[in-house]
Amino acid sequence: MATVRLKHITPLWVCSDAIRQCHATQAGTDYGGPVDCALIDRVGNKMKHASTLEHIIVQLDISDISRALLQEWSRHRIGMSQTVKSSRYTLKELKEEEPFTFYDVCRDNCTFEYLPTPDAFVRASKYVVYTGNDMVDEAILFNLEELRELIAAGVSNDVAKYAMPDAYKTSLTCSINFRSLQNLLYLRSAPSALWEFRELAQAIFEAIPEEYQFLLKDSLYEMAS
Amino acid sequence: MATVRLKHITPLWVCSDAIRQCHATQAGTDYGGPVDCALIDRVGNKMKHASTLEHIIVQLDISDISRALLQEWSRHRIGMSQTVKSSRYTLKELKEEEPFTFYDVCRDNCTFEYLPTPDAFVRASKYVVYTGNDMVDEAILFNLEELRELIAAGVSNDVAKYAMPDAYKTSLTCSINFRSLQNLLYLRSAPSALWEFRELAQAIFEAIPEEYQFLLKDSLYEMAS
Amino acid sequence: MATVRLKHITPLWVCSDAIRQCHATQAGTDYGGPVDCALIDRVGNKMKHASTLEHIIVQLDISDISRALLQEWSRHRIGMSQTVKSSRYTLKELKEEEPFTFYDVCRDNCTFEYLPTPDAFVRASKYVVYTGNDMVDEAILFNLEELRELIAAGVSNDVAKYAMPDAYKTSLTCSINFRSLQNLLYLRSAPSALWEFRELAQAIFEAIPEEYQFLLKDSLYEMAS
Amino acid sequence: MATVRLKHITPLWVCSDAIRQCHATQAGTDYGGPVDCALIDRVGNKMKHASTLEHIIVQLDISDISRALLQEWSRHRIGMSQTVKSSRYTLKELKEEEPFTFYDVCRDNCTFEYLPTPDAFVRASKYVVYTGNDMVDEAILFNLEELRELIAAGVSNDVAKYAMPDAYKTSLTCSINFRSLQNLLYLRSAPSALWEFRELAQAIFEAIPEEYQFLLKDSLYEMAS
Repeated sequence: MATVRLKHITPLWVCSDAIRQCHATQAGTDYGGPVDCALIDRVGNKMKHASTLEHIIVQLDISDISRALLQEWSRHRIGMSQTVKSSRYTLKELKEEEPFTFYDVCRDNCTFEYLPTPDAFVRASKYVVYTGNDMVDEAILFNLEELRELIAAGVSNDVAKYAMPDAYKTSLTCSINFRSLQNLLYLRSAPSALWEFRELAQAIFEAIPEEYQFLLKDSLYEMAS
Repeated sequence: MATVRLKHITPLWVCSDAIRQCHATQAGTDYGGPVDCALIDRVGNKMKHASTLEHIIVQLDISDISRALLQEWSRHRIGMSQTVKSSRYTLKELKEEEPFTFYDVCRDNCTFEYLPTPDAFVRASKYVVYTGNDMVDEAILFNLEELRELIAAGVSNDVAKYAMPDAYKTSLTCSINFRSLQNLLYLRSAPSALWEFRELAQAIFEAIPEEYQFLLKDSLYEMAS
Repeated sequence: MATVRLKHITPLWVCSDAIRQCHATQAGTDYGGPVDCALIDRVGNKMKHASTLEHIIVQLDISDISRALLQEWSRHRIGMSQTVKSSRYTLKELKEEEPFTFYDVCRDNCTFEYLPTPDAFVRASKYVVYTGNDMVDEAILFNLEELRELIAAGVSNDVAKYAMPDAYKTSLTCSINFRSLQNLLYLRSAPSALWEFRELAQAIFEAIPEEYQFLLKDSLYEMAS
Repeated sequence: MATVRLKHITPLWVCSDAIRQCHATQAGTDYGGPVDCALIDRVGNKMKHASTLEHIIVQLDISDISRALLQEWSRHRIGMSQTVKSSRYTLKELKEEEPFTFYDVCRDNCTFEYLPTPDAFVRASKYVVYTGNDMVDEAILFNLEELRELIAAGVSNDVAKYAMPDAYKTSLTCSINFRSLQNLLYLRSAPSALWEFRELAQAIFEAIPEEYQFLLKDSLYEMAS
């Protein structure tokens, strides 16, 4: 399950100040208090002068997402900057691991096959996102083992990574403004979105300080509790 | 002369953390101290992994720039959000002003003409940017007086503004990331840039906290002292 | 009045092909005919897979717009590229003009004032956009005459332009994709938009080939005939 | 190996016209001939008024690239629009395939293992990009077989795809302007770039009509022949 950690967020009064700038209103800020929030909600959110929301930028650390999710994340191009953990550098970690499978007689006592070691799924959880479907998760584990063997055999990362499953974990730091974040949450919390992205959308929402959530809650589909 | 006021800036460690994320380096942050700065300088600045500089975003209040400068400012589209003082709202202020000129015999004692009132240039400085060229500044003053008369006569802002000179002052709040700011300073501090923008580029540089200036100083042309 | 001239537009089948790519549908293109249009309308327009509309890019020449309009035009940052007639280069043309005003006794036979020459408004129409309000148009003419005198006196363009009125004409070439164009037409044809921009929005719509207009017509407010 | 097919490209004279617009030069176009090309090369390319190159937009069909490459491709955010073949829709094709492996005694005559069917590598080449490294390509084939079994067993695409290897093929249509394309070719043809992307960069260059290649050739690293 993805972890989302708030690193930094622009103070709310920066946005309310910008709105006052535009309309040359004289009323004072209460430094992100109820007066500022009401102004931001009315002008930036409800009156759809959405560009003023671009002044609120949040920086998040997002860990333990799959490369499947990263493919979709990277489609969000506007108002977003990201730095992604490089698979080149991180495949090195896998090199030190013990095998995740061993060769043995199957439960049918007749065919031989590779089977997961007792601690394989726990150890592998450092490297891959599980889906909750046993067949898929087992396939992912076997992929990981193949990848480990390739790395251990000295195959270079840029070639070995072609055998990396979409479940492989990555991490990123992103800077995203609230106008783009509204759009991202709206699209990715929808029932038609990828299940892992829906969970991430919820986790991002929860990582945002409570006093900013009024700007995002209408973008988020309710999740079944 | 433009005034630049720093409203907010992302802490430096957010950027150095993102770089560490990418390369999965284990070394610790010193929270924006010399170790972090050296890392940012090496990777984001010198090794040209410039997208990591996008995580440093500065919010600035820029006041008393001309609409001539705003035309050029608005060409910077990427990595920048801005909220500009609306000329619709602000022409109202001009309505309350006394005339800036009066009709009198000229110094030649023979022709009659409109002449600036004694305090005209001082009062007008609230509304227009002067160029330092007497002929131009006088033309600007007369334009301002015409504009005042149109507004005083009840002409709507959206029509009257067509008589507004490029010297007319405006203000804006911008959010800009350091990758885009490097590009902006580089282009707009050059000898071929508009004189007012060159002054603004210098003022922006000076408004940035000293510990961030190492990322910008190479983008800035030296100005004659 | 602004002139809009179509320079080039991406064939419709490029967009319908991209949609087929995405869903790996096998059905054939009819090269921008009714089958392709129906697909684009359903997926790109109505099902809001709007990014597929980014593959249709139109290139337009837009002449004789005011700098007032240009200020608002330049706020459209995304999915748009533009090249604008430089005021540095174009002020030169003004240098060759005869004066637009002359000094004479007013109709009251008692005060003296500068008055437009008989052909002034016609000659000036090459340089400025008129508003239809006599007071404003006269102010614009006087501003233009001041500007002409500054240029004729050898003041450099970068200083003289501070006396340029917002009515001063400019021209531009833009490349804009249909997703951004929908947004631009929607915002700028609204009753609250600047009158000149509303006229331009209508003119842009009319310059788009008829077979593409189904993608834009819902973005356009009806104009009074 | 990726296939790049040109779908459409903006005529060169649209760009040279835009440059003439900017400088209000009177000289005529030769409709993309040597005069226009020389102007584009001088102003847009060498004098670094690069935004004029944004008016040249090329639309390309890129087939048979790996998802590993797509991850890097998607980082190019600016001046680029893309529509990607959806893995949701395309995993269906795999459902109809016969197994790619069979269970048999190994060449050692003692252990049993899954082995590729005689035509496996040929049939699989429809679905995956090979690396040329036998160990890796075999791992990819086994991953593909696992994925096929999951799909055949009725596992939903959004879950099964977590077992998809990075070698899995995808296709896309992109619209990209020449300013962004210069940047993409520069970064992705470098010796440090992913090998598959370097080949793609070369293939893109070759798909561009010869009369446009003068704008791109300096961005491209020479490849060993």
